[in-house]
Amino acid sequence: MTPPVPQGFSVAGVHCGIKSDADKEDLALIITDRPAVGVGVYTQNLVVAAPVELDRERTPSDSIRAVVINSGCANACTGEEGLQNARQTANWVSQQCNIHEEQTLVLSTGIIGEQLPMANIEQGIRSAAEQLSDDEPSLIRAARGMMTTDTIHKICGREVNIAQKTTRITGLAKGAAMIGPNMATMLAVVITDAVLTVDDAQASLVEAIAESFNCISVDGHMSTNDTVLLLANGAAGTPPLAGKALNEFRATLVEVCEDLAQSIPADGEGATHLITVEVHGCRSRDDALQIGKTIADSPLVKTAVAGADPNWGRIVSAAGYAGVPFNPEHVSLHLNGILLYEHGTPVQFDPAAVSHSISSNRDTHIVMIFQEGSAAARFWTTDLTSEYVRLNAEYHT
Amino acid sequence: MTPPVPQGFSVAGVHCGIKSDADKEDLALIITDRPAVGVGVYTQNLVVAAPVELDRERTPSDSIRAVVINSGCANACTGEEGLQNARQTANWVSQQCNIHEEQTLVLSTGIIGEQLPMANIEQGIRSAAEQLSDDEPSLIRAARGMMTTDTIHKICGREVNIAQKTTRITGLAKGAAMIGPNMATMLAVVITDAVLTVDDAQASLVEAIAESFNCISVDGHMSTNDTVLLLANGAAGTPPLAGKALNEFRATLVEVCEDLAQSIPADGEGATHLITVEVHGCRSRDDALQIGKTIADSPLVKTAVAGADPNWGRIVSAAGYAGVPFNPEHVSLHLNGILLYEHGTPVQFDPAAVSHSISSNRDTHIVMIFQEGSAAARFWTTDLTSEYVRLNAEYHT
Repeated sequence: MTPPVPQGFSVAGVHCGIKSDADKEDLALIITDRPAVGVGVYTQNLVVAAPVELDRERTPSDSIRAVVINSGCANACTGEEGLQNARQTANWVSQQCNIHEEQTLVLSTGIIGEQLPMANIEQGIRSAAEQLSDDEPSLIRAARGMMTTDTIHKICGREVNIAQKTTRITGLAKGAAMIGPNMATMLAVVITDAVLTVDDAQASLVEAIAESFNCISVDGHMSTNDTVLLLANGAAGTPPLAGKALNEFRATLVEVCEDLAQSIPADGEGATHLITVEVHGCRSRDDALQIGKTIADSPLVKTAVAGADPNWGRIVSAAGYAGVPFNPEHVSLHLNGILLYEHGTPVQFDPAAVSHSISSNRDTHIVMIFQEGSAAARFWTTDLTSEYVRLNAEYHT
Repeated sequence: MTPPVPQGFSVAGVHCGIKSDADKEDLALIITDRPAVGVGVYTQNLVVAAPVELDRERTPSDSIRAVVINSGCANACTGEEGLQNARQTANWVSQQCNIHEEQTLVLSTGIIGEQLPMANIEQGIRSAAEQLSDDEPSLIRAARGMMTTDTIHKICGREVNIAQKTTRITGLAKGAAMIGPNMATMLAVVITDAVLTVDDAQASLVEAIAESFNCISVDGHMSTNDTVLLLANGAAGTPPLAGKALNEFRATLVEVCEDLAQSIPADGEGATHLITVEVHGCRSRDDALQIGKTIADSPLVKTAVAGADPNWGRIVSAAGYAGVPFNPEHVSLHLNGILLYEHGTPVQFDPAAVSHSISSNRDTHIVMIFQEGSAAARFWTTDLTSEYVRLNAEYHT
């Protein structure tokens, strides 16, 4: 079920010809009717796209009015011309929507190294501005406007009752390729009518990302464009969130981001399984996350799941090279609830039953238990299929 | 051309039934007629196979007489029984060859978590001991006895004239899967009749590995069994190598190890390209190696090469998340000698010509130039094909 658009926001998604297929939206516009707190977390890649440069300048802010997103062209590695084009994109939005250029944030995704087709962008912004709405079809079209090789649009939301008023948190994301951890693993925009300060918004977003977008990977490749934005326009009309109410908001934001984050590997390129790697009993959360990520990034683990092979040896050996010290004799491993490995040695199990449990479920659940401490973490990834290779070998030229 | 067996060594390779296919050798034996200096470098995985535990106890040594290698079963994650089986394997060699058990090193490769089929091992050692020889067919059979999913055996060698005598260095390796850097990226045994001290042998091996086996990857997955051994039996009859003679030996050992190391990604599972990533202009060799490895491990780069796509964006963005600081505006990139990217921006090039140059050559050469310093490194890997996925999804169960 599609969640509602938070109060005070309107959205649109249009096709303006950046993508060749006329059925595919390639530009999305999000507008708030009053200035919103706007914060962002951006790729840690040293090579950053022009829109990331622009948004870094403009956030954090207490007066964001618009986000414009295009797919089909990443506007990355495009030099000074690319930066000018990102500014021009924001400028057109400001003209159409009667706001200041600096109140507009820009996101781009798609092929690297090509300049934005500016005539299409201008026309797209004009028609998107005409179609702005808070209805469900508009929200879906906006989410579709962010998509590249995603097979379905990604929208997650929650409503939470704070101070006798309904506060809405709704997020849109695109994923599929180049999804690796270390922050901002794709494009996501979370909009809310909550009443937040800039500092609380930034802290809440950083916290939520640590539990969600930083815990997913498809191929471990961090992109030049990864961005997560949070816009809070305060239209819910509560007092500024603090204490228990703020905690409630933060917990709900984590949920929304977790749902959005999981939807990315679940729709990974060519994926037939969403793999959850749960790591327990570590000295620190960082240790647990590092082990989870190392298992999740192993092509041998990912191909084993694709082939429904209960190949615990690949999982255990991946943990062994994660760079985290542990006693191998105290390691246990469950796959889809079945114990495969205990106290450092394999146990008797029915390989056919485990294989059937993998092949008959889209979710694969790996639980690895250490005895080094009490910290835990979860990490999500996809399996690795021939279809992933085909898609990525054929993309572009 | 197969290099000769160094003086004083004899070798054999047999089929003893660990692999089901009777045409495939699965056990190799290497014997020296006099005690040899024996040194090893082993996997840094925390989870190590039984033979690695055994060989770590027994090296460095000045009295090694034998190495026995089986494929088809890794004897990893096999607990106390696995360690006993490794010792028993060495014991049978000592009985057959009339040497002490402690003079024998053991290597295993294959499936993790299954006990060695000891009846087959015993019979295999007996027939290998009967077939020991220094002829070319025996050397090839020994190399074949190490193979798992390798499509061809891997033997490299050099002869070098030191102190008016011929010194031979010949190496055998197996690779194909689970090849990642951080030492010992598979199994390799280098035998030489050079006259070396234990300390010089160890230092020479560590140095050679840093330039070779630590600069390759197939899938970035470090195995539980990775081992490189160097045996030097002194049969060349020169004075103990020192000074210029020792340097000459070391340089030749590096060449042999580089040749062997490259042959592994060249024969990577499902590989259609050997990719060389050359990184120049870094502050340190470690920086250059880290960037090279990050590019080489990116599934997006590897699939682009498989698809003959001059997708420089994937290469540049992979460098950007290597964790090494650099100025993106001073980066240049050549692919197969064609300039694609200069001073941080893409240049005009003919994509069809670059694509044709990738698809019509088995070697792909990526050269990335920074302006941070004068250190450089080379890293070798394979492309990522649907065939890799098929092989790894179908292995085992």
